[in-house]
Amino acid sequence: MHPSSADAAASGNPFTGSDARTHVDGGFALEEVALANRNSGIPLEALRYDVTPPGLHYLLSHFDIPEVDPAGWRLSLGGCVQSELSLSLAELLQYPSRTLRVTLECAGNGRAGMIPRYPSMPWINEAVSTAEWTGTPLRHLLDLARPTSWATEVAFLGLDRGFDRGVEHQYGRSLELAQARAGDVLLAHSMNGEPLLPQHGHPCRLIVPGWYGMASVKWLSRIDVLDRPFDGFQQAVGYRYRSQEDDPGVPVTTMRVRSLMVPPGVPDWYTRRRLVQAGSVVLRGRAWAGAGVPIEAVEVSVDGEWRAATLAAQTMHRYAWRGWTFPWPATVGEHRLQCRARAADGTVQPMAPEWNTAGMGNNAVQTVQVTVR
Amino acid sequence: MHPSSADAAASGNPFTGSDARTHVDGGFALEEVALANRNSGIPLEALRYDVTPPGLHYLLSHFDIPEVDPAGWRLSLGGCVQSELSLSLAELLQYPSRTLRVTLECAGNGRAGMIPRYPSMPWINEAVSTAEWTGTPLRHLLDLARPTSWATEVAFLGLDRGFDRGVEHQYGRSLELAQARAGDVLLAHSMNGEPLLPQHGHPCRLIVPGWYGMASVKWLSRIDVLDRPFDGFQQAVGYRYRSQEDDPGVPVTTMRVRSLMVPPGVPDWYTRRRLVQAGSVVLRGRAWAGAGVPIEAVEVSVDGEWRAATLAAQTMHRYAWRGWTFPWPATVGEHRLQCRARAADGTVQPMAPEWNTAGMGNNAVQTVQVTVR
Repeated sequence: MHPSSADAAASGNPFTGSDARTHVDGGFALEEVALANRNSGIPLEALRYDVTPPGLHYLLSHFDIPEVDPAGWRLSLGGCVQSELSLSLAELLQYPSRTLRVTLECAGNGRAGMIPRYPSMPWINEAVSTAEWTGTPLRHLLDLARPTSWATEVAFLGLDRGFDRGVEHQYGRSLELAQARAGDVLLAHSMNGEPLLPQHGHPCRLIVPGWYGMASVKWLSRIDVLDRPFDGFQQAVGYRYRSQEDDPGVPVTTMRVRSLMVPPGVPDWYTRRRLVQAGSVVLRGRAWAGAGVPIEAVEVSVDGEWRAATLAAQTMHRYAWRGWTFPWPATVGEHRLQCRARAADGTVQPMAPEWNTAGMGNNAVQTVQVTVR
Repeated sequence: MHPSSADAAASGNPFTGSDARTHVDGGFALEEVALANRNSGIPLEALRYDVTPPGLHYLLSHFDIPEVDPAGWRLSLGGCVQSELSLSLAELLQYPSRTLRVTLECAGNGRAGMIPRYPSMPWINEAVSTAEWTGTPLRHLLDLARPTSWATEVAFLGLDRGFDRGVEHQYGRSLELAQARAGDVLLAHSMNGEPLLPQHGHPCRLIVPGWYGMASVKWLSRIDVLDRPFDGFQQAVGYRYRSQEDDPGVPVTTMRVRSLMVPPGVPDWYTRRRLVQAGSVVLRGRAWAGAGVPIEAVEVSVDGEWRAATLAAQTMHRYAWRGWTFPWPATVGEHRLQCRARAADGTVQPMAPEWNTAGMGNNAVQTVQVTVR
């Protein structure tokens, strides 16, 4: 039902072996550009919004956006449970719901900066956004279904389907039962106070605060409580940190500490180089870390000299990015601006990415080159 | 005030000559990928919607999305008029408004398919969408301002600003006075019944139905009635069909006839190759032409054999794309699917693009390669 890579590779489907991607260093392929055209990053100036406006939230869809008739949609919850559930959208909406402000980042954000590069969605910096998600806490439904004593994991299956590296599958991911029961995982039906847009998982998606976006399964259709590790492609093969192809690797889970700045001044259309007027400039940006860990500090470097930025007041939104500002007396000439966040767990952004085969979790310091006149 | 290329190149700004782009054939540059990441195409499966949902409408912003306080925003209308205007948003909203369903396409759509390629936003097929725009007809304001007898053109200036090929400018475009007075040009304040989103020109933008998107200036701030041709960069330099660099070229204006299909079946994540189940498949897509010219026919080719598709009923929306369907008895094997539209003015999509230096107006036939099993 959830074929592993080996199972599906043996099944003789026509795309087996058709996607033997090798790492590259240099120009980007048309396939990478096609992915960049259909997926969407946040324009970095939109980091100015506490909550990202509709249509500017980053978007990564593995397969096609499914067309879901909300009247016919049902969410089933089965497997190792004492009481299976099957809910219509109207039934789901009757459960108590919560709203959480959550910063989501794609695990592949920064992939284009890991050299040699894995050919996939070539994010540079822009796969991060923040929204207000409203939905039923997952634990309510798990409490109703009563997992058996053998239950160890919970798998979430979306309605989106396709191939990856020769393996046909529905998009699916799992959480350990304890994580799934944590209070903050939502079955979200609304984003920023409106029903989910088709591209954000309409009519219902998972939101796993503090984790990279791959955990927040869109177009949710089935929840399976399992007594063994979920072997779906996106769990067993897709999202892992591997140092080389035959390394079993470790799973990609929560977001790594990271910060970004709004590039100051005005851009050149093609190069996006920035021109800034000399004088007082306030640099602004956002910082976030995974698993609800607070940001403790942000530093800004002008031409290599690091100084503390001012963090915005701590809010109630523990899963949302934190704003920061840095007053900069900009002097005429070329300057290199950088920012670096430190989380309360002591993690700090590295100056260079930690390379892994699929280009995951790149939280290296951003550099913005500016000309001041 | 609106520097021409030559003026600005002579002004010694720091980006002069920093963007000497040359045509390439092969891998894409990081700059092209950065543009693809920050701009957004429509995922082709979303061609199924008559009106593109918010956030799936294609998006091309030359410079940064400006932050506009609607309370402080004013639209000025001046130049060769007998009565200058300066309107607040509240004042503009008091004028009668119209709603038009309009298909917009970026003039650079298909640029990546013109070889050798001009390095810029590397659209393949996905820079086209349809929305319902509500606003005040431009002619109402022109009637109030009463252009003088010397008036020949109307220029529209946005609040977005930056550099292109060394020239610093506000984004601006013009229309001839007669075009500007045509009933269907709108000063739009709403999209799909909601106030404009920041990225779509909030609080007010121009909508020029039937034209490529560059005419529909976003974040509108000033309208200048002129007695001579507008010499702004995007008019005089940016959007022209040129056969070689020193060709003065001709202006890019209305959209060329074009059709696209929703790729059938399910995709491979990286290559986007399609797998289709054998049997009855209904191919679907959209077709459109510029200047409100109706679509007269769409044909579909399976492996080179062309047959007529069925057009959806003609609607009142003369500026919107038209749906089409084509029943296809899909047989096991590899197949090449194509679609081709003909407009009522006799224009037909070419099989290969008509090359021009900046990669504009590529309306060549789309090809979708599928595997049927």
